[in-house]
Amino acid sequence: MPTIFFYGPKLDKEKSREMIKSFTETASRLTGIEKPAFVVYLRESSHDNVGVGGELLKDRMEAEHVKGKD
Amino acid sequence: MPTIFFYGPKLDKEKSREMIKSFTETASRLTGIEKPAFVVYLRESSHDNVGVGGELLKDRMEAEHVKGKD
Amino acid sequence: MPTIFFYGPKLDKEKSREMIKSFTETASRLTGIEKPAFVVYLRESSHDNVGVGGELLKDRMEAEHVKGKD
Amino acid sequence: MPTIFFYGPKLDKEKSREMIKSFTETASRLTGIEKPAFVVYLRESSHDNVGVGGELLKDRMEAEHVKGKD
Amino acid sequence: MPTIFFYGPKLDKEKSREMIKSFTETASRLTGIEKPAFVVYLRESSHDNVGVGGELLKDRMEAEHVKGKD
Amino acid sequence: MPTIFFYGPKLDKEKSREMIKSFTETASRLTGIEKPAFVVYLRESSHDNVGVGGELLKDRMEAEHVKGKD
Repeated sequence: MPTIFFYGPKLDKEKSREMIKSFTETASRLTGIEKPAFVVYLRESSHDNVGVGGELLKDRMEAEHVKGKD
Repeated sequence: MPTIFFYGPKLDKEKSREMIKSFTETASRLTGIEKPAFVVYLRESSHDNVGVGGELLKDRMEAEHVKGKD
Repeated sequence: MPTIFFYGPKLDKEKSREMIKSFTETASRLTGIEKPAFVVYLRESSHDNVGVGGELLKDRMEAEHVKGKD
Repeated sequence: MPTIFFYGPKLDKEKSREMIKSFTETASRLTGIEKPAFVVYLRESSHDNVGVGGELLKDRMEAEHVKGKD
Repeated sequence: MPTIFFYGPKLDKEKSREMIKSFTETASRLTGIEKPAFVVYLRESSHDNVGVGGELLKDRMEAEHVKGKD
Repeated sequence: MPTIFFYGPKLDKEKSREMIKSFTETASRLTGIEKPAFVVYLRESSHDNVGVGGELLKDRMEAEHVKGKD
């Protein structure tokens, strides 16, 4: 019955598979609960709906990109 | 003030109505809190962003579909 | 694999059973997904860690209680 | 490390910036934790996937709109 | 109907009041939705059930404390 | 900025460390985002506040225990 939520960037199908497999194996081993009981939700979050340190992530990424060009 | 989140497949409008109505009536009756205080969020989850038993649900559905055809 | 979260007051065991049973039956019927795939989390929320309308619920309850006594 | 989730209507970029900035400043001041440690997620919720008082919000909005016209 | 979740350290009653009041006023102003429709959940998270950068926060705090003493 | 929530049984400190470390390393490798940006919340869920298949988990565990004794 354990449930895992991942909030982060969109992953392609191969990476989604790997994340689900790895999270489930680790959590099953550490809890002693069999793997079929685990559900993993990959909840996509884009740069224009998340803020870090008080700034929209999109703004911060653009600022760093400009700085990186100097 | 109670809040209910449902993570699952997309529902059409009629089924969304029924789920919201039923969840709210049940929870209102059991908590003794009046219905207007309840909020229900239907959060869609598709087969390529959820994993069950360590596998992407999409892969599992396709495998079962193939097996079902045997 | 669908998952339901309920944020609200603590329920005794009998009411917890009823809520879990009713939510699962309703959601199973509306989604067409079999009941064993459903997980319901009852996440307790007390009056001093929830706010409604900008006020701590505890304050609001006490204010209403006083008013109710007039 | 604190994390804030906002479930509500879609905001334009300017309002998203303001919400993230204000939530982070308030929470940083009240917890004494530095701003870079805060993450804010704006999770959009539309009128056809949320229910209030047992009704789909879309239905309620339309009913109020009709009533408002009387 | 918007809902805000705060995951972070436990706050005393006065700070809880301020956080709920400020989040609700900001969000009401930016969304144009009246304050009574907002619910804020303060979900406590302690140093031994949260990880940052791959480490238990408790371990990291203790390591920084020791370093700070040098 | 990615965030991971684990809802499941309480873990001791050593297992909490391993889960946080493993989830963060896996997610960092798959997303290409550096480890310090990740936060993992371990949200404890006990047998009397979770339901599986429409039954309180506590009831199900006790029924299985009795059956296991036959």
